[in-house]
Amino acid sequence: MAINYDYELEFTVRNYECDVLGHVNNSVYQNYLEHTRHEFIKTIGLNFKEMLEKGIVTVVARAELAYKTQLLDGDRFVVKLRVEHEGVKYIFYQDIYRLPDQKLCLKGIITTTSIVNDRLAVSEEIIMALERVKQIREE
Amino acid sequence: MAINYDYELEFTVRNYECDVLGHVNNSVYQNYLEHTRHEFIKTIGLNFKEMLEKGIVTVVARAELAYKTQLLDGDRFVVKLRVEHEGVKYIFYQDIYRLPDQKLCLKGIITTTSIVNDRLAVSEEIIMALERVKQIREE
Amino acid sequence: MAINYDYELEFTVRNYECDVLGHVNNSVYQNYLEHTRHEFIKTIGLNFKEMLEKGIVTVVARAELAYKTQLLDGDRFVVKLRVEHEGVKYIFYQDIYRLPDQKLCLKGIITTTSIVNDRLAVSEEIIMALERVKQIREE
Amino acid sequence: MAINYDYELEFTVRNYECDVLGHVNNSVYQNYLEHTRHEFIKTIGLNFKEMLEKGIVTVVARAELAYKTQLLDGDRFVVKLRVEHEGVKYIFYQDIYRLPDQKLCLKGIITTTSIVNDRLAVSEEIIMALERVKQIREE
Repeated sequence: MAINYDYELEFTVRNYECDVLGHVNNSVYQNYLEHTRHEFIKTIGLNFKEMLEKGIVTVVARAELAYKTQLLDGDRFVVKLRVEHEGVKYIFYQDIYRLPDQKLCLKGIITTTSIVNDRLAVSEEIIMALERVKQIREE
Repeated sequence: MAINYDYELEFTVRNYECDVLGHVNNSVYQNYLEHTRHEFIKTIGLNFKEMLEKGIVTVVARAELAYKTQLLDGDRFVVKLRVEHEGVKYIFYQDIYRLPDQKLCLKGIITTTSIVNDRLAVSEEIIMALERVKQIREE
Repeated sequence: MAINYDYELEFTVRNYECDVLGHVNNSVYQNYLEHTRHEFIKTIGLNFKEMLEKGIVTVVARAELAYKTQLLDGDRFVVKLRVEHEGVKYIFYQDIYRLPDQKLCLKGIITTTSIVNDRLAVSEEIIMALERVKQIREE
Repeated sequence: MAINYDYELEFTVRNYECDVLGHVNNSVYQNYLEHTRHEFIKTIGLNFKEMLEKGIVTVVARAELAYKTQLLDGDRFVVKLRVEHEGVKYIFYQDIYRLPDQKLCLKGIITTTSIVNDRLAVSEEIIMALERVKQIREE
């Protein structure tokens, strides 16, 4: 049941991201997921700043995070991402695996949506970019 | 269908918690929820440091966050909390309301669990403290 | 040689602000100082958002921080602030004292400056507000 | 007057590190400097965790940061580091340059010290590691 991911990005845990127990703080995982989405978005030709100038804003509507294994200071890991489009929702399936042993650390589902000129609406630009992702995936 | 909360804590959004769009960053809400749980825990007579010395650690197993309304720099808000005990899980229902208009900003469900001497296990201390919460609630 | 402070703000250390050693992370002190400056600024009638709309931005040019005593999770503390105006610089002397024992934790000097319409320049609004601070101080 | 650096580490600015103005928040630069020191420390054979077990803790006593040019979301940059040993102090000269144009963004001097068995003291291990750095530098 392997997921066919669209993108992946490697990180190393930084000491300041760890808490009193030596674990990466729970909220920091959302930072990792967000940074990965932003880097992914660039690779499919979208630019947040340009979209913002056209009145398009994307926001997170929902985050579901299942913590499986704690990441520790110095750990290397990869965030893998798959995106699906459903109505006005762009759903990011984002999983974190520790490196090099590929142990699953976090399973995340981040549901985002777009606001165009202050109204919840589909953005044509985003849809077209996601279509390209789908084409690449199926090749 | 009003929830009967067990605890609440007020905050003010700090400028450094806001992102490029002027909204509180999505990951920062988890910080607010965590700090509220920690302050609540103290009020029911539990002490993380003392528990740690006895080999009891609590960890977040799952976080589900539904973002409803963006908090902005300077906004005042309250985090309300209700806790339920189910098997080895301690489930925190945590909702954020903006002040003074009580607009719902976030609905969160944080599932935590306890590890006693490196094994997933119920902690008697935590159970007893949660029983006291239940008694207070029903009075 | 007591400093005559212009403003003070109380905080409680939050667990997520602490690092692996249980100390508040060094960078977090700058967050405390910044939030205190922002809250102070409001009390003297300045509003960052309104200033920004008029093309006035204040930036930190220099930060000097002497760490004296570590703050720990749950510690209460107060950030005290005095501001001085020198040319295009607004210098904030900001010291952190633990509560209730008033032990000195950090001595900070934060030098800020203002950029008006993209040029380093004195902002009349800021100068006038700081004059009022001086008057209040000398009363 | 070029500085002969001992180490350098590349980063990319992450969106969540930026504030309402789109600049990297002032406190985040300390995170970059800290992570660079930690990565450097590993390359000279020191290990914080092992040192901690022997009762050796290093702490920041003083940070002086001169902000020169704002880093923005997506900017690539390098943190360069030189370390000097003076008595019980280990002084890190750490400068941040934007890439690829090598524009100076921040000049930092971070003074750290070591605490051995709860007393301010020189750590033989650290001194020996720093001697090796000096030898490598002079080769």
